[in-house]
Amino acid sequence: MWENTKSRIPEATVNRLSTYARILDQIKSEGTELIASADLADQCGFKPAQIRKDLAYFGEFGVRGKGYYIKELRENLKKILGVTQTWKVVLVGAGNLGLALLAYKGFLAHGFVIDAVFDKFPEKIPSHRTGSLPVLPMSDLHEVVQEKQIKIGIIAVPSESAQNVGTALVNAGITGILNFAPTQIQTPHHIKVKNVDLGSELEHLSFYLSQYP
Amino acid sequence: MWENTKSRIPEATVNRLSTYARILDQIKSEGTELIASADLADQCGFKPAQIRKDLAYFGEFGVRGKGYYIKELRENLKKILGVTQTWKVVLVGAGNLGLALLAYKGFLAHGFVIDAVFDKFPEKIPSHRTGSLPVLPMSDLHEVVQEKQIKIGIIAVPSESAQNVGTALVNAGITGILNFAPTQIQTPHHIKVKNVDLGSELEHLSFYLSQYP
Repeated sequence: MWENTKSRIPEATVNRLSTYARILDQIKSEGTELIASADLADQCGFKPAQIRKDLAYFGEFGVRGKGYYIKELRENLKKILGVTQTWKVVLVGAGNLGLALLAYKGFLAHGFVIDAVFDKFPEKIPSHRTGSLPVLPMSDLHEVVQEKQIKIGIIAVPSESAQNVGTALVNAGITGILNFAPTQIQTPHHIKVKNVDLGSELEHLSFYLSQYP
Repeated sequence: MWENTKSRIPEATVNRLSTYARILDQIKSEGTELIASADLADQCGFKPAQIRKDLAYFGEFGVRGKGYYIKELRENLKKILGVTQTWKVVLVGAGNLGLALLAYKGFLAHGFVIDAVFDKFPEKIPSHRTGSLPVLPMSDLHEVVQEKQIKIGIIAVPSESAQNVGTALVNAGITGILNFAPTQIQTPHHIKVKNVDLGSELEHLSFYLSQYP
């Protein structure tokens, strides 16, 4: 849930834009040129009207009676999602979760590169576990974030440290935070915080298993 | 995105139900009894009409002109989400991500307990890293899932092994899968698969940083 009140684009729309882009990526590699609105909707699992409504926030897309030009829509979506550039990301927390995120191949596919790793106790993390990136002490956070001009931070520390890390990231100049700690953090209004609640992902399963046993 | 076509409840609705339940949990602990529809909407970041629409799938909730009884709505939501019971979960993959999920405190808060851990090479995982649960070989998966009557599985293996693990889970009797591998897996129609795409979580940030720099 977005803390930010300034933005008028619903989070669910951003979610769907990601889906559209991903589906178009798959279609594109099959060489098709134009996709009918109903086909795209079908493959994404949404209604054509939903796609039109989501895209309408950003301009006019699609050709009446024909559908969407795949390549064009894909490029527009990536521009909208801000993934035409590569984003440098700072990771705080080099425990199991942090190391898992460091090794996660799905980030690069979306244009994100973890460019620096910090931990409260960098000396405790065996260097062979972090690949080529050294784990730096928190005292270097501000300098490194400024020097590398990093704007996105990932919090992968226990709940009880999450707020302190969040504050340190904001003070260092980070404006977007992906928070994996299962707790809310307080930040100034201009900072975007996205909480990843892995427990609520499991709730999707228990919901469907309960509703349709 | 849900592969399942049988279900008419949109995934975004399930997402919001999780949010409502979480917000109500926080309010409840402050001792309030009734919450105005507009207040709940405000705290959740959605419109009152959205909440009404989401809840209408499951029955009549709320008191006209007054709002919602907090305790009652919270309990109803948990029933809907299937989290009044504890769900046993099997985890496949004891690499960094698997170990991170094993240590993740957010699952228990939602009523999920990882009850068995499997890996292709269990002998390679130091026993002190998995706590009290032994890491079992894949050859035991079927028997353990059947014996413990586990219905939910988590895939925390590299992309190239995800399909094989998914198939093994389904064959063992799992009907709900949370897939962390950044790839799609094919399953029979009655199986619910929820893909966790950590890269698309970051896209939320790049979207907002691009739209509102």
